[in-house]
Amino acid sequence: MNEKMYRISGDRFIKSIEKYAKIGETENNGVTRLALTDDDLQVRKLFEKECKELGLPVIYDDLGNMYATLAGTQTNLPPIVMGSHLDSVTKGGKFDGALGVLTGLEVVRTLLDYNVQPSSSIVIANITNEEGARFEPAMMSSGILSGRFDKEKMFQSTDNEGITFGEALNRSEYEGDSSNRLKEAAAFLELHIEQGPILESENIDIGIVEGVMGMVNYEIVIEGDSNHAGTTPMHLRKDALFTANDLIQKLREDLSQLDEGLVYTIGRFHVTPNVHTIVPSKVVFTIEARHKDEHVIEQVENVITSSPSSIKPEGCSIALNKQWDRNTVWFNKEIVKKIEASCQHLNVSYRSMVSGAGHDSQFISTYIPTAMIFVPSINGKSHSEDEFTPREDCVNGGNVMLQTVLELLNSK
Amino acid sequence: MNEKMYRISGDRFIKSIEKYAKIGETENNGVTRLALTDDDLQVRKLFEKECKELGLPVIYDDLGNMYATLAGTQTNLPPIVMGSHLDSVTKGGKFDGALGVLTGLEVVRTLLDYNVQPSSSIVIANITNEEGARFEPAMMSSGILSGRFDKEKMFQSTDNEGITFGEALNRSEYEGDSSNRLKEAAAFLELHIEQGPILESENIDIGIVEGVMGMVNYEIVIEGDSNHAGTTPMHLRKDALFTANDLIQKLREDLSQLDEGLVYTIGRFHVTPNVHTIVPSKVVFTIEARHKDEHVIEQVENVITSSPSSIKPEGCSIALNKQWDRNTVWFNKEIVKKIEASCQHLNVSYRSMVSGAGHDSQFISTYIPTAMIFVPSINGKSHSEDEFTPREDCVNGGNVMLQTVLELLNSK
Repeated sequence: MNEKMYRISGDRFIKSIEKYAKIGETENNGVTRLALTDDDLQVRKLFEKECKELGLPVIYDDLGNMYATLAGTQTNLPPIVMGSHLDSVTKGGKFDGALGVLTGLEVVRTLLDYNVQPSSSIVIANITNEEGARFEPAMMSSGILSGRFDKEKMFQSTDNEGITFGEALNRSEYEGDSSNRLKEAAAFLELHIEQGPILESENIDIGIVEGVMGMVNYEIVIEGDSNHAGTTPMHLRKDALFTANDLIQKLREDLSQLDEGLVYTIGRFHVTPNVHTIVPSKVVFTIEARHKDEHVIEQVENVITSSPSSIKPEGCSIALNKQWDRNTVWFNKEIVKKIEASCQHLNVSYRSMVSGAGHDSQFISTYIPTAMIFVPSINGKSHSEDEFTPREDCVNGGNVMLQTVLELLNSK
Repeated sequence: MNEKMYRISGDRFIKSIEKYAKIGETENNGVTRLALTDDDLQVRKLFEKECKELGLPVIYDDLGNMYATLAGTQTNLPPIVMGSHLDSVTKGGKFDGALGVLTGLEVVRTLLDYNVQPSSSIVIANITNEEGARFEPAMMSSGILSGRFDKEKMFQSTDNEGITFGEALNRSEYEGDSSNRLKEAAAFLELHIEQGPILESENIDIGIVEGVMGMVNYEIVIEGDSNHAGTTPMHLRKDALFTANDLIQKLREDLSQLDEGLVYTIGRFHVTPNVHTIVPSKVVFTIEARHKDEHVIEQVENVITSSPSSIKPEGCSIALNKQWDRNTVWFNKEIVKKIEASCQHLNVSYRSMVSGAGHDSQFISTYIPTAMIFVPSINGKSHSEDEFTPREDCVNGGNVMLQTVLELLNSK
């Protein structure tokens, strides 16, 4: 066979994406498919039906993860797994997660088109509750699969209506056996939208994801004194907002001196009492920073912990509460090389990246050789109805996935 | 008669304050007596009953303002009016407003104790809905009395339950005739807590209030773009919070160069979407500034309007929305002098002040010679259950009011 000829069907792939996007479709061209809601169950049904129509048996594990398998000719070889998630956030986009699962489906369809009989089995996986939008935390099932999260505790996670994850899973048809869990595999490959603007801004087709950035997260609490805005002279105030302003200025100044790949965000900022005629008595804000190099994250922590002593607190107290951190996860170098070779083979432009966002792959990579393929997100938008990835980028991604699977099969 | 002997009864005065504070009393020693609620009606009943027991007829005008009159011996002279308000904010203090009305009551009781027969009538006024905490705006009735506010419009102001001010007044027993409105008078005197920390911090007994500061009020809207905190490089962000921080830094820097009597406050600050993993797309904050000199307020406006062009907006738009302003109101110099003479006579320490907070007096001063007497607020607290004014300060204030009334009577 001449591998150079293998290409996915762009039309079929895009039609498939549009078909799945109808389930849980929102007014503005997005989707809402929270984990184990009716819409999620409906999209699972469609996925199962289509896999079975292709002759692929579908099994579920005790977490509701779905695995559709194209059997390999050599039953003793570990499988090659392509996976992502079909659940979404509220008013999310149609590509986040679904694109990875449907890439798997399109790759299998293409292998069948060409009558390729793979030596290893090829598995398409739909991982339950990646988003954590209904049941916290995100990446719940991959966290359990990898031993990072405790199953019993996770099953008690409740949605807004008090329903636990365990109950919701039990009511669905997708609670299977723990013996079906994703175990040993030759590779776990996840294609995903970038969720950032780098590929688009650099006009690059494919991001080869070498890992997921480490991060650190603080909540900072500043307490002063509320007073009447008209009657309290400036020198007798303990203004929590002005102190926050000084602290943030100092943090930004120092953080901007660190590595240029560092990202840092003050996303949440809450003022008490938040009345225009009252001097703020309290400000609580979050700061999080991400970088692939743990030494840079250490520098960030030094900046944060030293910041209160480097400003005038104007009579306010400043408390730093570390919320959590995570180390950078590095993906499998061999798999990364296979993706790179595939890009070269297909003559698509590519660059290495370290994901700033979390993905199931970061947990799965702890026990299966894993890597990710990113395709561009227009304006870097995700978790939004504005999320979009152009047809050509989806098709490029699909072909890189196909080629990577072929490279892996050939290297056996 | 030897005026030097005239003193209010401290015990009676403090008992009176405590008695009124029982109505609408809160758990932590404050009061909640929103305008025209049952508690406000109850405190009005008590005030009316006590005035009548002293032989003072009580009338109401069409705004529910109450006037109790100790008749003067010369019916052709305009009255001397002492007034403030018995309503409060939610969980306010027992002195804000009530102290002014009860000072009037104590002064009348003292005049009766000494069998003083005043030439002019002496009126104690309870002005309806000063706080505006149930029906906006604050100083509603004095605004109507002075022609600044439109009665029809004010009567349509609704509380949280959809009840209009007009309906609430109509259901009470206190809707009287417009012919009873406060008209020509020799003086309007309002004793009030300072609501600020200046007197306490300078260890001064009495503030002689020469006027109410002018002010200006802006809402500033900064719009950027929301993006994923992990995937968006710093140089591709349009971070509304960082831009707000730069703008506030610049505003504070420039405003701190202006007159040291200037006060400026950023009290309300709202972030969208306010999620710790998302770069803020929008920040809305208020800035208000107060000063007695209109030229300083003009400088403040210059600082605000020039601020956006003096920072790097980092791709964000900045809109300045002027909400409203008010000019400084100057009280009557003759009345101010009488208060000063009274302080000297009583040998209490005093200083001139310009109120940073608004009071009914500022509207009434537009048609009646008016001035105010401030007594200290511990820690500058008001609109809070922590509001407190020590007994000695209350008594000093009461004696200054008594003496001022005597000075005014003697100057006829």
